[in-house]
Amino acid sequence: MKFKNARKDLDLNSNDRLYNSSISPFAPKNFKNLKPRGFKIFTFHSGFKKKKDDLLIIIFDKPIRVSCKYTLSTMPSAPIIWDKKNNKGMCRALIVNSGNANAHTGVKGLETIDRYTKDLAKYLSCSQKEILVSSTGVIGEQFDSQIISNQIKILSKSKNKMLIDAAKAICTTDTFVKTSVHNLKIQNKIIKIYGFAKGSGMISPNMATMLSYIFIDCEINSTRLKKLLSENIEETFNSISVDSDTSTSDTLMLFSNPTNKITLNNESIKKISKKLNKVMEELSYKIISDGEGVKKLTKITVKNAKSKSQAKNIAFAICNSPLVKTAIAGEDANWGRVVMAIGKTNEKVIQNNLSIKFGKILLAKNGERNRRINLSRVDNYMKNKLIEIEVNLYIGKHSKIVYGNDLNNEYISINADYRS
Amino acid sequence: MKFKNARKDLDLNSNDRLYNSSISPFAPKNFKNLKPRGFKIFTFHSGFKKKKDDLLIIIFDKPIRVSCKYTLSTMPSAPIIWDKKNNKGMCRALIVNSGNANAHTGVKGLETIDRYTKDLAKYLSCSQKEILVSSTGVIGEQFDSQIISNQIKILSKSKNKMLIDAAKAICTTDTFVKTSVHNLKIQNKIIKIYGFAKGSGMISPNMATMLSYIFIDCEINSTRLKKLLSENIEETFNSISVDSDTSTSDTLMLFSNPTNKITLNNESIKKISKKLNKVMEELSYKIISDGEGVKKLTKITVKNAKSKSQAKNIAFAICNSPLVKTAIAGEDANWGRVVMAIGKTNEKVIQNNLSIKFGKILLAKNGERNRRINLSRVDNYMKNKLIEIEVNLYIGKHSKIVYGNDLNNEYISINADYRS
Repeated sequence: MKFKNARKDLDLNSNDRLYNSSISPFAPKNFKNLKPRGFKIFTFHSGFKKKKDDLLIIIFDKPIRVSCKYTLSTMPSAPIIWDKKNNKGMCRALIVNSGNANAHTGVKGLETIDRYTKDLAKYLSCSQKEILVSSTGVIGEQFDSQIISNQIKILSKSKNKMLIDAAKAICTTDTFVKTSVHNLKIQNKIIKIYGFAKGSGMISPNMATMLSYIFIDCEINSTRLKKLLSENIEETFNSISVDSDTSTSDTLMLFSNPTNKITLNNESIKKISKKLNKVMEELSYKIISDGEGVKKLTKITVKNAKSKSQAKNIAFAICNSPLVKTAIAGEDANWGRVVMAIGKTNEKVIQNNLSIKFGKILLAKNGERNRRINLSRVDNYMKNKLIEIEVNLYIGKHSKIVYGNDLNNEYISINADYRS
Repeated sequence: MKFKNARKDLDLNSNDRLYNSSISPFAPKNFKNLKPRGFKIFTFHSGFKKKKDDLLIIIFDKPIRVSCKYTLSTMPSAPIIWDKKNNKGMCRALIVNSGNANAHTGVKGLETIDRYTKDLAKYLSCSQKEILVSSTGVIGEQFDSQIISNQIKILSKSKNKMLIDAAKAICTTDTFVKTSVHNLKIQNKIIKIYGFAKGSGMISPNMATMLSYIFIDCEINSTRLKKLLSENIEETFNSISVDSDTSTSDTLMLFSNPTNKITLNNESIKKISKKLNKVMEELSYKIISDGEGVKKLTKITVKNAKSKSQAKNIAFAICNSPLVKTAIAGEDANWGRVVMAIGKTNEKVIQNNLSIKFGKILLAKNGERNRRINLSRVDNYMKNKLIEIEVNLYIGKHSKIVYGNDLNNEYISINADYRS
C-alpha cells in the first residue's frame, strides 16, 4: 500500500516545530503503510509536544520474541538502561514517546519508567519485564510518568491505528515519516517484513538509528533473530552519519511476530535476511535523507583497503569532515579535502597509490592531480543531489560504503535554534 | 613594540580574499613586532596570490639549530616529506609560501622543492639540507619552482623586513596577523622569545598549528631544544581545534638563534621553557581566535578523569561536536548535548557522578539536571564571547583544557565558497 503526500502529512506548520526548516528534498513522494496483524497500534497526543501525537503504544496479542540493539554511548538514556536490565527477549507491549528523551535523568528517570510500565502491565496482566520502552527528544528534562499513565487509562476505548501513525508519533525534527514494507514468499505463504523509524540529527555510526522498530511476520527462534539483526546492521544503520554525533537513545528492535505458521529452514532464513536487509537499508537511507538541513546526499566508497575497519575509518572520516561537507554544499569538487580527511585518520596507506573519483570523473590518481580533467563536466556533476566519492587505496581487498550529507546553513539554523 | 590596527593591516578588501568573511571579533587591537637580530626577513609578492605578499624567505647569518614538529597526517605535503628527509637539525634559510600547499603533488612536488632550494643553496653557498621549506594554501595544485627562483634572483637587492611582514606573507584565510614577542632576563641579559603563525581552518589536534615559527635568542643544544618543543606543545598547539580537520601541512619550527652568548643551567632553561610556553600559548590562542567564521570561543575543561588521555578525548569530543558548537552559536546552554558528546567517546565514566557547568553556573550534577537553575542568568551567560564549559567526572585526578569555537553560518559560507 502506498500513500501520496508523505510530506504534507507531517503537518509542517505545527507549533511543535521549533525551528524553521524546509522539508528534505529527498522526502519520498509516497510512503508505505499497512495495518499489521498480531498487534495493535495506539497513538496519542499526550502532552510532551504542544499539538501532535507524541506517544505510541503497541500491544501484541501475546508475548513475542524480540532482539534489540542499543546505542554504544556511555551516557545511555533511562529507557535503554531500563530495557537492558529488565527485558529477557519477550515483548508484550512497547511504549515510545517523543518530545522528551528521558536521558541523563538519573534514578528519577528510571523510577518514572517503573511507574508507567507498572500501569500498563496491570492493564495487560503481564510482567513489567515484557514491556519495552523508548524515548526521544530533549536530553535532561525529567518527565512525569502520569502523562503516559493517563493515556494507558483510556487504552481500552482507543482506536487501533496504522503503521504510518506509529511512525508519525515518534518523529521529532524529522521532515517526513519513515516506513518500509516488503513481502517475501516462503512455502507459498506471504511473509511481511516491515518497520518504521525516526531520525534526523545526532546521527552517527554505532547504531545510527535513533529509533527503529521492525517486524517479521513469522516465528523465529531467538538465536536466529539475534543473528538476523547482527548480520544486517553493519551495512545499514551502522553505515550512515549525519553529524558524527552519537545519540544517547539509539534503539533498534527486531520483532518476530508469529502471525504465520511456517517451519523455517536455512534457505528460508537466508531469504528473510535478504529482505530484512532491504527494509533496514530503506529505513537507514530514509534517515540519512532527512538529515537536518540536508540539501545533498553523499555516498562514500573506499575500495581496496587493507582491512574492513581501515575502509570504514577512512570512509567515515571523509563522510564526517566539516570541510568536505561544506565543499559539497558549495558544489565544489574539492578533492584536496578528501586527501586531508584520509590523512587525518592515521590509517597507514600509500599516498602515491591513491585515486579519487567524484562520480565517474577521475580527479586524482597515483598520488597527484589528474591533469586531464574537464572542469565544466566536474562543475556539472557537483550540481547533482547525490554526490558519490570513490577512493581507491590500492593496498588490499576490503571495501566500505557509507552514506552522509552536506553541511549547510540550514543545519546550523536548525541546531542553533533548537532550544534545550 | 606594539602596533595599532592589526586588523586593517591585512588589507581585507584585497582580491586575494576569495570569500566574504568579516574580521574575527577576537582580532587583537594591536600586534607585537620587532626587527630580529641574527637573521634577515624577506617577503615578496611572487605570484601564488593575485595581489599580496605570498613568499617569505628568512636567511640566518649562519646555520643555527632548529627542532621541528610536523602534522601526523598520513598525507603530508611535499615540504614536510622534503624537510623530514633532508634536514638534520641545522638551518641556514627558511622558505615559506602561501597560496599553494604543494600537497598531494607526488614526485613532481618534491622535484619542485629540489629546484628552488638548489637555487637558494647556490646563492648562500650552503648545503641544500640546511634549507627548510613550508607551503600553505590549496591542496593538489602543482606549482612552478620558477615562481620562487625568480625572487631568489633578486634577494641581494631586496630590503630586510620586520617580524610582522613575515607573519603577513604566510596568511591564507586568516583575518588578522599572528605574532608574539616576550622577553626574559638571564644573567642580566635580555633574551627575546618570539614567533609568528598562520592558521584559520583545517585546524585540529596533533599539531594544530598550520604554520608557526618561533625563535629563542640564545644558543641551546639540540637535546634541550627538542625537549623545550615537546614539553610545551601538548598544552598549546595540541589543545586547540577549529573543525576537527587535520591539515596536511601543519608545521612548527623552534629555532635557537645564538645572538646572545650565555651559559645555560637547568634553572635558566626552566625560565626559557616557561616563557616559550607563553609565546606558544599566545600563538595557538590567536589561531583559535581566528577560526573560520568564529563568533564565540569555547574553553572546555574536563576535570577528575581517570587518565590524561580520557580527559583529552572527552574534552575534544565536546569541543568538536557539531551539535554542541551550533548550540553555542545559538546561545543555547544545551548541556544535554554535552552529555551526548561525552557518551560518544566510549570512555568509561560514571554517568551518575557527572556534573556540568557553563561558566560558574551548575547545570547538571549527580547525573541529572540541577533543578535550581536561574534561567535568565544562564541566558545572559550565553551572550558572552567566551563560553567556558566544565565537566567534572569525579573518577580520577586528571584534567585537560582545550579551546575551540562555535559553528555558524559564516564557517559554512567561507568553506562552501573557497574554491579548490
